[in-house]
Amino acid sequence: MKNEKLEGLIAAPFTPMNKDGELNLSVIPQYYALLKRNKVIGAFINGSTGEGVSQTKEEKKKVAEAWAAATRNDKDFKVINLVGGTSLADCKEMAKHTQETGLYAVSFTAPFYFKPGSAQALAECCAEVAAAAPDTAFYYYHIPVLTGCHIAMYDLLNAVNGAIPNFAGIKYTHEDFMDFLSCMYVDNGRYDMLWGRDENMLSALALGAFGAVGSTYNYAAPLYNDMQQAFKDGDLLKARDLQQLSIDMIRLLGKYGGIATGKAYMKLVGIDCGGFRLPVRNMSDEQFEAFRKDVHALNFESFCSR
Amino acid sequence: MKNEKLEGLIAAPFTPMNKDGELNLSVIPQYYALLKRNKVIGAFINGSTGEGVSQTKEEKKKVAEAWAAATRNDKDFKVINLVGGTSLADCKEMAKHTQETGLYAVSFTAPFYFKPGSAQALAECCAEVAAAAPDTAFYYYHIPVLTGCHIAMYDLLNAVNGAIPNFAGIKYTHEDFMDFLSCMYVDNGRYDMLWGRDENMLSALALGAFGAVGSTYNYAAPLYNDMQQAFKDGDLLKARDLQQLSIDMIRLLGKYGGIATGKAYMKLVGIDCGGFRLPVRNMSDEQFEAFRKDVHALNFESFCSR
Amino acid sequence: MKNEKLEGLIAAPFTPMNKDGELNLSVIPQYYALLKRNKVIGAFINGSTGEGVSQTKEEKKKVAEAWAAATRNDKDFKVINLVGGTSLADCKEMAKHTQETGLYAVSFTAPFYFKPGSAQALAECCAEVAAAAPDTAFYYYHIPVLTGCHIAMYDLLNAVNGAIPNFAGIKYTHEDFMDFLSCMYVDNGRYDMLWGRDENMLSALALGAFGAVGSTYNYAAPLYNDMQQAFKDGDLLKARDLQQLSIDMIRLLGKYGGIATGKAYMKLVGIDCGGFRLPVRNMSDEQFEAFRKDVHALNFESFCSR
Amino acid sequence: MKNEKLEGLIAAPFTPMNKDGELNLSVIPQYYALLKRNKVIGAFINGSTGEGVSQTKEEKKKVAEAWAAATRNDKDFKVINLVGGTSLADCKEMAKHTQETGLYAVSFTAPFYFKPGSAQALAECCAEVAAAAPDTAFYYYHIPVLTGCHIAMYDLLNAVNGAIPNFAGIKYTHEDFMDFLSCMYVDNGRYDMLWGRDENMLSALALGAFGAVGSTYNYAAPLYNDMQQAFKDGDLLKARDLQQLSIDMIRLLGKYGGIATGKAYMKLVGIDCGGFRLPVRNMSDEQFEAFRKDVHALNFESFCSR
Repeated sequence: MKNEKLEGLIAAPFTPMNKDGELNLSVIPQYYALLKRNKVIGAFINGSTGEGVSQTKEEKKKVAEAWAAATRNDKDFKVINLVGGTSLADCKEMAKHTQETGLYAVSFTAPFYFKPGSAQALAECCAEVAAAAPDTAFYYYHIPVLTGCHIAMYDLLNAVNGAIPNFAGIKYTHEDFMDFLSCMYVDNGRYDMLWGRDENMLSALALGAFGAVGSTYNYAAPLYNDMQQAFKDGDLLKARDLQQLSIDMIRLLGKYGGIATGKAYMKLVGIDCGGFRLPVRNMSDEQFEAFRKDVHALNFESFCSR
Repeated sequence: MKNEKLEGLIAAPFTPMNKDGELNLSVIPQYYALLKRNKVIGAFINGSTGEGVSQTKEEKKKVAEAWAAATRNDKDFKVINLVGGTSLADCKEMAKHTQETGLYAVSFTAPFYFKPGSAQALAECCAEVAAAAPDTAFYYYHIPVLTGCHIAMYDLLNAVNGAIPNFAGIKYTHEDFMDFLSCMYVDNGRYDMLWGRDENMLSALALGAFGAVGSTYNYAAPLYNDMQQAFKDGDLLKARDLQQLSIDMIRLLGKYGGIATGKAYMKLVGIDCGGFRLPVRNMSDEQFEAFRKDVHALNFESFCSR
Repeated sequence: MKNEKLEGLIAAPFTPMNKDGELNLSVIPQYYALLKRNKVIGAFINGSTGEGVSQTKEEKKKVAEAWAAATRNDKDFKVINLVGGTSLADCKEMAKHTQETGLYAVSFTAPFYFKPGSAQALAECCAEVAAAAPDTAFYYYHIPVLTGCHIAMYDLLNAVNGAIPNFAGIKYTHEDFMDFLSCMYVDNGRYDMLWGRDENMLSALALGAFGAVGSTYNYAAPLYNDMQQAFKDGDLLKARDLQQLSIDMIRLLGKYGGIATGKAYMKLVGIDCGGFRLPVRNMSDEQFEAFRKDVHALNFESFCSR
Repeated sequence: MKNEKLEGLIAAPFTPMNKDGELNLSVIPQYYALLKRNKVIGAFINGSTGEGVSQTKEEKKKVAEAWAAATRNDKDFKVINLVGGTSLADCKEMAKHTQETGLYAVSFTAPFYFKPGSAQALAECCAEVAAAAPDTAFYYYHIPVLTGCHIAMYDLLNAVNGAIPNFAGIKYTHEDFMDFLSCMYVDNGRYDMLWGRDENMLSALALGAFGAVGSTYNYAAPLYNDMQQAFKDGDLLKARDLQQLSIDMIRLLGKYGGIATGKAYMKLVGIDCGGFRLPVRNMSDEQFEAFRKDVHALNFESFCSR
């Protein structure tokens, strides 16, 4: 079983679609190449950014297979596949498929219609899914703003209590730094804690985070690599300037309607992933033009993926 | 297209499972017979109570087919099938299957991971799903406590604006009586507004609700039929006493862990539906014994289904 | 000690202010006269509508004294004074003053900065404040949307357990009809449960509510008196039409910025109460003109206070 | 006008009370001496920790005067007085008193019954209160978990737009590091951003925070001074260990009932501040004994104030 710590940026790819909203998997090889050029070390697929919940099971399998094919000869590139959903039977099927496809890791998030009522119940869910891919690393995906499951991860790790052998760590997409740091101290730092809030990465670096998973690494990885380097060099002033630049970029997501804005950013770096599916709505052509101007004003060209 | 108003109690059945958590569809004919004996006029299947979200698509189809088979010769018994989930493609496939199976209606709830950001976005989702079963009545299922989608139904109906021909009405599982009454006045009462909070039925009757969908009609329909009759007779004192009795019964759900308690009630009326699947947890044997005593103290035998 | 049940409409008056935002108590006699003409049976002063929280203690005392003076010769008109705030010492001082001023009742709401953590803690708060005016009826004011205190009133009454002799009842401004009805059954109906959501009054009448406290009774009492009469007469169709008319009126509050809109309604019925204090903002003159047109379109003149 | 940046720890003192819950101001000189011994640079009085909301205006004035007297000869020790409440008239009176008493700064938080509906409305509130003490520094106190006012501080600063001359900065008690960092970049770092979450201080140090206000600096300042020194020295491993130790200590607050636990910690460092007032409840003697053992297990004696 793997228990390594991932170090560096892991992008959460958008799922490429054509104008009809159908999968457009032919984009994935060039997508992968872009990430490599930008020193991104892995991909967290079928997640929130990847619209896993808006796809069918069959589609998610195809996405997983396409990423496996594109990265087959690159053992250093880690693909983590979110199998989460509300039906554990589906999740287990997807976890099994992830292992068969040879991806690096399975990820799972709390069922989000009925929410687990306790850390113990959540640990039981994790145990079932992790056991369906026993030879593959398992990462819990903590994103309470979307799942509505607010159980602290420190409590989850204590409930798991080491009894899930392939439980590798947590993708932590929440602002509870107290909980995050405590998780890093559980069992002498056994778990790989991946930070999931791009706009706060610097605060997580200070706590010892090595790896990070996020959507803006798709189109602005150079900025974050520079930030990590500045932090390592002890140049905090530079690191803060870069973090603030990332915030300015992220603030445009709010201004232009949220998560779908990410696919607009991708167009600017030359990867057309189409639009988001309903219930997410995409910006109009007029909005896109205004967006493009706002992005240009940020000097985006100086730090975007290329 | 149907535009009738359903009048009476519609149970939201539990999905019968065996000890392994697998479907136990053989129970459904006797389940249907129980509902008929208790003058329940329909079934809302694969909903919250039916653990639709915890089943696979294939399982939900089997449940739908089993209810279709059990009720084939009873045109008065209306089966409504919740097709909701986060993937509209899945929802459309399920809606199509619902129509092919010959059930009475399709129901759909807001995607609950990404939430629709406006009434317009939600109306677009409804339009897509309703169009997949164009000859079947479509009911929106409003249950914000579980979906996290808090768009007012008055706003949804205005956004729909009559443009979805088979939009029949709403199963309304929320306490916003202002919104509920306003919906009843839209387009001269065009929409069939089904009340979904058993513990508040009397307050909805006062507003003119005819039909109600709920989980406690599975095991306590006589109580509610008596309440409706008392209301019709103008005997409000009796109606209130019965509503308070229903509340006492429902309060035990909270005491014994929530929705899974419903399957414990079913055991008491002779239909073993097994347990709930994770992430919902079931009561222990000790808890069941305490529960049984509390139920007995309510004089449950005097008003339960039989 | 009083343990009567109030029957009818109790207005929650706006506190009259002049253009500088200072108290304009000279308006109160004519305000009282308006309420009497409209068969309003009492006033709940210094509450949410009355901006109690935006006044100083000294100002609230003056408001209380002005209402006492205006209603001195009218023993049938009940004035209830909200003494609530975050400091129990202040609340007790205000309760004592209420009793000395000879008003009908004291009301108290949960401290809303630090919130009581349990029904027991809230009951202790009530006990302290009620004891400061031992010869005056005490009403708890339940308005969780503003206080953030979500303790169920059924739990509060059980925690009080009859040990507060002057605890007369609850002004219930929340949509939990299950909790409301249960409170009406506690101790054989000992407590006076006053309904506090004007837009849902009909649903509360069905549950047996006799009295109601609200802000729209200031300017539209005839509508609600007609509704109550229609309900008593068994003419539910008429009662619903009137409730829907009240909803149309209340919906304009949302459209024009919330609670401050109420003072704009007052201007239309001839009582100038000035504007709300910060942090509430008042509508502009342009907004007021648009508002006036919307109100006219409702045929407001046919049911407003006069 | 002051526009200096405070650097170091500012304690938020508990308000000392005797067994009857009355103020016990005689404790304040020794309280001040303790803070000085532990290199605390100031005190944020009458805040959440200081139970400002549970005191009368007269009491808060006495507390302010007692701190002024105790620190009269120490110009390096900064006393900031929270004047917040729901009545702006009260806040202005308190701000004026703060200036007359000669304290270092006024602080103000959003009204928390009626909440400001926009950054503009909140800025208007700030302007009124700041103008009442025009020669005194003004700090906005951002603590949405208690006030329910979730307006971003970046939006507030933009709404203020430099138009409040004595607006010195913000005490930021919230986990939104994106918002916090953005505030630090407004107007070339004009504002003094004081961090208010002790359990996350290290993450704020990485963003350039100099000053911090918190309750645990009352009894564990040495730990945090060591953490700040380790951070300055570039010894992040040590800084993290100390932050985790602080978290272990803070977790006991949750275990033993919340904010009142702080006064129990104070007893352990030799300053008896009595108990909290209602609606906060205090631990029982049995709980205190269990608490004392838990604290001892943390090796509290090695890092507590002395």
